Amino acid sequence: MSESFENLWAALAAVGRDPDTGGYRRGGWTPSERAATDWFLDQCAARDLTVETDGIGNTIAWWDPAQAAGDRPGVVTGSHLDSVIDGGAFDGPLGVVSALSAIDLLRAEGFVPSVPIGVGAFVEEEGSRFGMPCLGSRVAAGVIPREKALALTDRTGLTLAEALGRSGIDPAGVGPSPLPAKMGAFVELHVEQGRALTAPVGVASSIWPHGRFRFTFTGEANHAGTTLMEDRHDPMLTYAMTALAANKQARLAGARATFGRLSVEPNGTNAIPSRVIAWLDARAATEDALQSLLGAITRLATERAERDGTTVELVPESVTPIVDFEAGLRDRLVGVLDGAPVLPTGAGHDAGVFSDAGIPTAMLFVRNPTGVSHSPAEYAEMDDCLAGVDALTAVLKDLAR
Amino acid sequence: MSESFENLWAALAAVGRDPDTGGYRRGGWTPSERAATDWFLDQCAARDLTVETDGIGNTIAWWDPAQAAGDRPGVVTGSHLDSVIDGGAFDGPLGVVSALSAIDLLRAEGFVPSVPIGVGAFVEEEGSRFGMPCLGSRVAAGVIPREKALALTDRTGLTLAEALGRSGIDPAGVGPSPLPAKMGAFVELHVEQGRALTAPVGVASSIWPHGRFRFTFTGEANHAGTTLMEDRHDPMLTYAMTALAANKQARLAGARATFGRLSVEPNGTNAIPSRVIAWLDARAATEDALQSLLGAITRLATERAERDGTTVELVPESVTPIVDFEAGLRDRLVGVLDGAPVLPTGAGHDAGVFSDAGIPTAMLFVRNPTGVSHSPAEYAEMDDCLAGVDALTAVLKDLAR
Repeated sequence: MSESFENLWAALAAVGRDPDTGGYRRGGWTPSERAATDWFLDQCAARDLTVETDGIGNTIAWWDPAQAAGDRPGVVTGSHLDSVIDGGAFDGPLGVVSALSAIDLLRAEGFVPSVPIGVGAFVEEEGSRFGMPCLGSRVAAGVIPREKALALTDRTGLTLAEALGRSGIDPAGVGPSPLPAKMGAFVELHVEQGRALTAPVGVASSIWPHGRFRFTFTGEANHAGTTLMEDRHDPMLTYAMTALAANKQARLAGARATFGRLSVEPNGTNAIPSRVIAWLDARAATEDALQSLLGAITRLATERAERDGTTVELVPESVTPIVDFEAGLRDRLVGVLDGAPVLPTGAGHDAGVFSDAGIPTAMLFVRNPTGVSHSPAEYAEMDDCLAGVDALTAVLKDLAR
Repeated sequence: MSESFENLWAALAAVGRDPDTGGYRRGGWTPSERAATDWFLDQCAARDLTVETDGIGNTIAWWDPAQAAGDRPGVVTGSHLDSVIDGGAFDGPLGVVSALSAIDLLRAEGFVPSVPIGVGAFVEEEGSRFGMPCLGSRVAAGVIPREKALALTDRTGLTLAEALGRSGIDPAGVGPSPLPAKMGAFVELHVEQGRALTAPVGVASSIWPHGRFRFTFTGEANHAGTTLMEDRHDPMLTYAMTALAANKQARLAGARATFGRLSVEPNGTNAIPSRVIAWLDARAATEDALQSLLGAITRLATERAERDGTTVELVPESVTPIVDFEAGLRDRLVGVLDGAPVLPTGAGHDAGVFSDAGIPTAMLFVRNPTGVSHSPAEYAEMDDCLAGVDALTAVLKDLAR
């Protein structure tokens, strides 16, 4: 079977799109994410690919006309099918659909790979349901202990173990997976997510170090109508100043800082809050720059807390070091692609996890004209997507020849 | 039956207190609010008071040894038993328990009132469950149409009609109530909620005008890691500046402004928000001052939104005009209490609703040494509470003689 990229793309884009927002809510193991996965498995079946799924549900669909599996590790491409809450169509699915199209093109021209080519779809990459980005790849690579993974909870309090059970997946199978050992190389194609790429296709140099930091601002609940302004210990003010300071410090440093998630207690209109919990997402080009940014934000928050009579507590929830993709593979891709531009990214990816696990890993980026991502407005031109498919096809042909 | 104020107070304070926070979550018709109401009804029964409950559940328990009911309207005191989320022990219950104690004292000294004396407990005064402060008194007074009241929803989406049904109350009975017509005067005793009262007991002059205003800040969701700071349209920044501006403007105006409730979309750690909804509680001594405060905050929010590339929309959810309590009744209380101080309050009360409904109404305040209210730390000295009971006893004796 072979179908045009445009048709494949249109078919998957229709799966689970929210008619109101135009976005997707494909948290791991939710009905809309499962529908996208079912679509993918149907496409694999239509192409006679050999589907291999590990305990947590990561899938690699193998094309192996030379029957090389078992002798030599494969060349794996692909990405993920889950999304952030109200995410766009491209982040993840573009890499999966481009991989299917690349195999269609290689087949059509009669190419026979000397090693298996695999199309991977790794689960819960965004961490939008269980709060842990790259959950599937991290569990597969053994970076997270299985007990820790199974105990993660979603916003309704359901554990991963319970959620898997409800999806008909036995949690006993969750743990380090046989898949990484079969990945001789991994090339993830992904939509670029800023406006850093001016050519249709580029090659990744590195993933910026980034961290999620939980700030707890604690004050004193009180009556909003009767408490004198000067008697208040209002943690909302400390938070508000910290949010503005984080933005300013990131601008000054050429880095990124975002407060996108908040929890307010008691969250009543007529009550001064007792507590504001705010999650900072911070990223910078180097680990020193990230620490320096965090230090500046924390210092300003603490100074303001002293003025407000509140307290600030900081807990790093996850800190991910820089990922430098393997230089040899990167240069090989640049060569195949006639000198495509090389650029870093501020976003985490399964490619980073597999790179850290010792698998030679590279990434291809497709141009994003607006820089919008993690939003229903996320967009790439069809011509650029087709250029991405052509680039991936050429790279696979080179790596699997 | 007669029991000391201290014992009554300790008994009610134990009902539904959260062992973790030390606070109360007595939203209307919740189990802990129902338990407090049951305690109150038991106390009324033990005193042979005649309990009269209207359709929504407001209760007046009558002491009428002269059998004057039907001939002359009564003198009603009391307050409410519900609380804000994680509220304190005093706001509401102090007025109810003081009323029971005052009747005990009047009986003990052989006083026979010439008109009925009623102890009122009005439901959902805080509006912490259905978002409408003074819900019970407003429905009773016919200020809110019954259809509007029954359609109010709590945070789980349950309507008032459904919640009443689950509590065994027929929603068909909700509507204007016979109780207000039986209230010849209403005197609500309440803990003071700032630090405005330096004597043990004071008398209210007025309730400040106040309003709840919903600000919707809309921007553009985007990826927190990859979006350049200068490409963002982040509504969190517009909100944060507005929260700081509201605080500053209220300080300058000698008024109150609080952002205590927030809703963030999509509320993901790695997503720049698309929308922040924030509720402003604003109060000032006059209606002109309130409008001026709101105008200043809105102007600053709009200016910042232009810089951020976001938008601000403002919806007034409720605006309550000033309540000036009846001067004759107020002066009579001051006379009975030997020149007790007279002071306004920034808090809304059922007393304001009944005053607006044309019932001669007054309030007694008991000193709050810390100014903390709507918090588990809310507190009044026992000596001041006892002074409050004595004051209320003297006032009832004067009004019902």
